[in-house]
Amino acid sequence: MQKIVECVPNFSEGRRREVVQQIADAINAVDGAKVLDFSLDADHNRSVVTFVAPPETVGDAAFEAMAKAAELIDMTQHTGAHPRMGATDVVPFIPIKGVTMDDCVAIAKAVGQRVGDELGIPVYLYENAATRPERQNLANVRRGQYEGIRDSIATDPARTPDFGPAKMGTAGATAIGARQFLVAYNVYLTTSNVDIAKKIAKAVRHSSGGLRFAKAMGLEVDGKAQVSMNLTDFTRTPIFRVVELIRREAARYGVGIESSELIGMIPQQALVDAAVWYLQLDGFSPEQVLENRLASAASE
Amino acid sequence: MQKIVECVPNFSEGRRREVVQQIADAINAVDGAKVLDFSLDADHNRSVVTFVAPPETVGDAAFEAMAKAAELIDMTQHTGAHPRMGATDVVPFIPIKGVTMDDCVAIAKAVGQRVGDELGIPVYLYENAATRPERQNLANVRRGQYEGIRDSIATDPARTPDFGPAKMGTAGATAIGARQFLVAYNVYLTTSNVDIAKKIAKAVRHSSGGLRFAKAMGLEVDGKAQVSMNLTDFTRTPIFRVVELIRREAARYGVGIESSELIGMIPQQALVDAAVWYLQLDGFSPEQVLENRLASAASE
Repeated sequence: MQKIVECVPNFSEGRRREVVQQIADAINAVDGAKVLDFSLDADHNRSVVTFVAPPETVGDAAFEAMAKAAELIDMTQHTGAHPRMGATDVVPFIPIKGVTMDDCVAIAKAVGQRVGDELGIPVYLYENAATRPERQNLANVRRGQYEGIRDSIATDPARTPDFGPAKMGTAGATAIGARQFLVAYNVYLTTSNVDIAKKIAKAVRHSSGGLRFAKAMGLEVDGKAQVSMNLTDFTRTPIFRVVELIRREAARYGVGIESSELIGMIPQQALVDAAVWYLQLDGFSPEQVLENRLASAASE
Repeated sequence: MQKIVECVPNFSEGRRREVVQQIADAINAVDGAKVLDFSLDADHNRSVVTFVAPPETVGDAAFEAMAKAAELIDMTQHTGAHPRMGATDVVPFIPIKGVTMDDCVAIAKAVGQRVGDELGIPVYLYENAATRPERQNLANVRRGQYEGIRDSIATDPARTPDFGPAKMGTAGATAIGARQFLVAYNVYLTTSNVDIAKKIAKAVRHSSGGLRFAKAMGLEVDGKAQVSMNLTDFTRTPIFRVVELIRREAARYGVGIESSELIGMIPQQALVDAAVWYLQLDGFSPEQVLENRLASAASE
């Protein structure tokens, strides 16, 4: 089966398109790496690049992007509405196909080492790659932003980077980590009563006692009650379980699910998992998907 | 999105592995074509080759295979238990991804023309590519087998081929057509009572009033009642509808579905269709599957 890692680095440049284009070009120049999309936000003065690559080269592509960003972006000149600490601000590696979270953690650490050693940029490992519990949360790592970290990195032990010098240059510092693909998923109810959506959201979301990797809120969209969600690990809190829990809670109020919608992209695995669960395909193997066999054949 | 056609030609050679290997090699030599599997049956003296290719070259690969088979297989020397009429007996083109049935019909006709003109082999178009209703069914086309067709092809207007001469040489005649992917699917019930499986199979199958593209029978496997099915067009009789109909019929007898199983391969589309239906993802687009975006990017 073809192996795919996604990487979604954020850069502190949201106004000069040519800079982000050069970063994207540096990624595309690496064997097997392909930029799917990039977008710039002028107010945040920040850009997001989405690319995919096989596990063997995804780290090289991220490194080349970070080297280019360090060359073209000067954090001493940067202002913008979004919290930030480096030219390359954050680099998450995301397992998509034939790759485990552990593989992505190993990639994050190897890239962090190279970036620290070769580019002289302080690197903090975060989320699943974090070496300290308080660094799992990106907001903690980035607290104080570029200026605050620059002034305390040499003296505050809590700021000691995982790789690279305890000293920030014009490229600032970078958070590198591994996380699951984030699924943005909304369910529309057969009611306009937003209170029901809010009660269901409360039942579903982790923070108020619900499912471990679900964030949810109830709101009204186009006159319909909607349960709006972010699923932060669809491999452990699968979409079908979320939808069926919502269906049960909704029935309690005498309403049903009218439809659902997926915002943005989803890995094939999340949909195949749903099909296998609903169809009760207990012995199913991913190699039974014809396209997966084709990818295996192509990589022989 | 990446485009894929599957082709599953059958050859009248099930004993000499080196002959089938040479045919497979001829297919693999065509740009983009890849043999996924081939198997020989000595009693039937027949082999089945499964390959995939993009729509642009799948016809060339099939042509090269047929040219090689005509060179290496002599129908005047062939005996075997399975009905057969040519060195290459039958060539179905099957839409898998980003390709319509009409595309596959057009490919079948173009290949048929080339085989008739360049190899001098009589070609009968069958199934979705058939030019006469009675030729939709392959069994009708093959009636009388090699010897019978050889003796009547020049004189019986019903035997006039769609392409090529009304005269058979040592390569015999070939049926070329287009059909949907065949899904082999079994459902196990929470009972050992095979009579219930038989009643459900009768309700589900087309021949006794059920779903248009479902064949079904009830049997006992490992002490469990099983509804065993062939779904001949999953785009029009989708798996989820079959499973939910079985679930409803089973409930009528007080039993449920214990599990289901898929025999062999399935196109990704069939599973995605099930996920979309159960999750009620009304506005879903195949381009939201990350792997499809990747394939699009790769083919730019």
